[in-house]
Amino acid sequence: MSSKERPGAGRLTTRGAATRARIVAAAALLVRRQGVAGTSLDDVMAATGTSKSQLYHYFANKDALIREVVKTQLAHVIAAQQPDLGEVSSWEGLQRWCDHVVAMTRATQGVGGCPLGSLVGELAEHSDSARHELAQSFAEWQSYLSTGLATMRDNGELSADADPAELALTVMSALQGGLLMAQTMRSARPLELAVNMALEHIRAYRRGPKQAQRRQP
Amino acid sequence: MSSKERPGAGRLTTRGAATRARIVAAAALLVRRQGVAGTSLDDVMAATGTSKSQLYHYFANKDALIREVVKTQLAHVIAAQQPDLGEVSSWEGLQRWCDHVVAMTRATQGVGGCPLGSLVGELAEHSDSARHELAQSFAEWQSYLSTGLATMRDNGELSADADPAELALTVMSALQGGLLMAQTMRSARPLELAVNMALEHIRAYRRGPKQAQRRQP
Repeated sequence: MSSKERPGAGRLTTRGAATRARIVAAAALLVRRQGVAGTSLDDVMAATGTSKSQLYHYFANKDALIREVVKTQLAHVIAAQQPDLGEVSSWEGLQRWCDHVVAMTRATQGVGGCPLGSLVGELAEHSDSARHELAQSFAEWQSYLSTGLATMRDNGELSADADPAELALTVMSALQGGLLMAQTMRSARPLELAVNMALEHIRAYRRGPKQAQRRQP
Repeated sequence: MSSKERPGAGRLTTRGAATRARIVAAAALLVRRQGVAGTSLDDVMAATGTSKSQLYHYFANKDALIREVVKTQLAHVIAAQQPDLGEVSSWEGLQRWCDHVVAMTRATQGVGGCPLGSLVGELAEHSDSARHELAQSFAEWQSYLSTGLATMRDNGELSADADPAELALTVMSALQGGLLMAQTMRSARPLELAVNMALEHIRAYRRGPKQAQRRQP
């Protein structure tokens, strides 16, 4: 079956879309539990009670299914951080979002890590299309931050030389590193320290009376 | 066989130690390529030409072997960053070490990610002993940084309220996040931004005429 004939999520009947979503959700759970290499299509079929022909009706191969898992994880991540992630266009909004992610991690003690970041180690070297999907997912996540930071720059809260895209990427690195260390140490402390550093980094671009304090790199 | 009877690396003949090291090295390579779940003891036996009884002579189970893989990765990481990692007790030394890790990542374009960090996503939720081994490995790596930063504090280059252990953990989070994003994006840029942020964060504790500039958190 060519990719043209395979129905995308948007071209399915309600029942088909539900089956497809159920397969992706089960695969996501298995991947979180067993890793990508440890999750076979047979596992997914067993978990969802679907046949091989049903599975291949929706997904060309395991790689295509894993890409959908990545998309699902992104959707979960974005949803879990709302409304704060959509309101990072002020100092108070940024602080609220940071408090939100730290509080979530405090609640889990870092178990599971980032639903996206924790897939990178296993996926990035095994599937270039999955790595690409991860990169796009991070970029979409970061776009909330860069949009908010651009608004702050336009409002005069950040200086004109602040680069919202690079700042957003830097914040994402701090977040991912903090979550990875939190997952390893079973403590929210590394994330808390990392996001505080990231906020301090953004504050170095604060415009106004304090601008003179900005240290040169 | 009880753990008491199983020979540790220090109690082996030269030949035994070589065989054990060869098994660990092969397992490390397989894990990097196939992930932990995707690497079976059968794979390790096939790659090293060892029998099941030989393998179990050295390692109680897969978990014990994976812990040795983590230790080996740590040794590689530390060795690859010398001599700079051992000389992070001055501003110039810190900058040299940061330049070193960024240059290494520029050379690989992030492929493979951090040999330790890239294992966290798959290992942390599947083996508590492996997660613990990873946490200890990061702590050992960080100890180079915290020792250097403590020297800088004792020398009066950092203010008395600088906490070397927390600063080292924060730098490690920046490094891990930068490497994870670099691996995903196939670019050293995220790591470069992250370590610059980390250096800036340490500089906020610089002692001397500039101390008055330190922003409050």
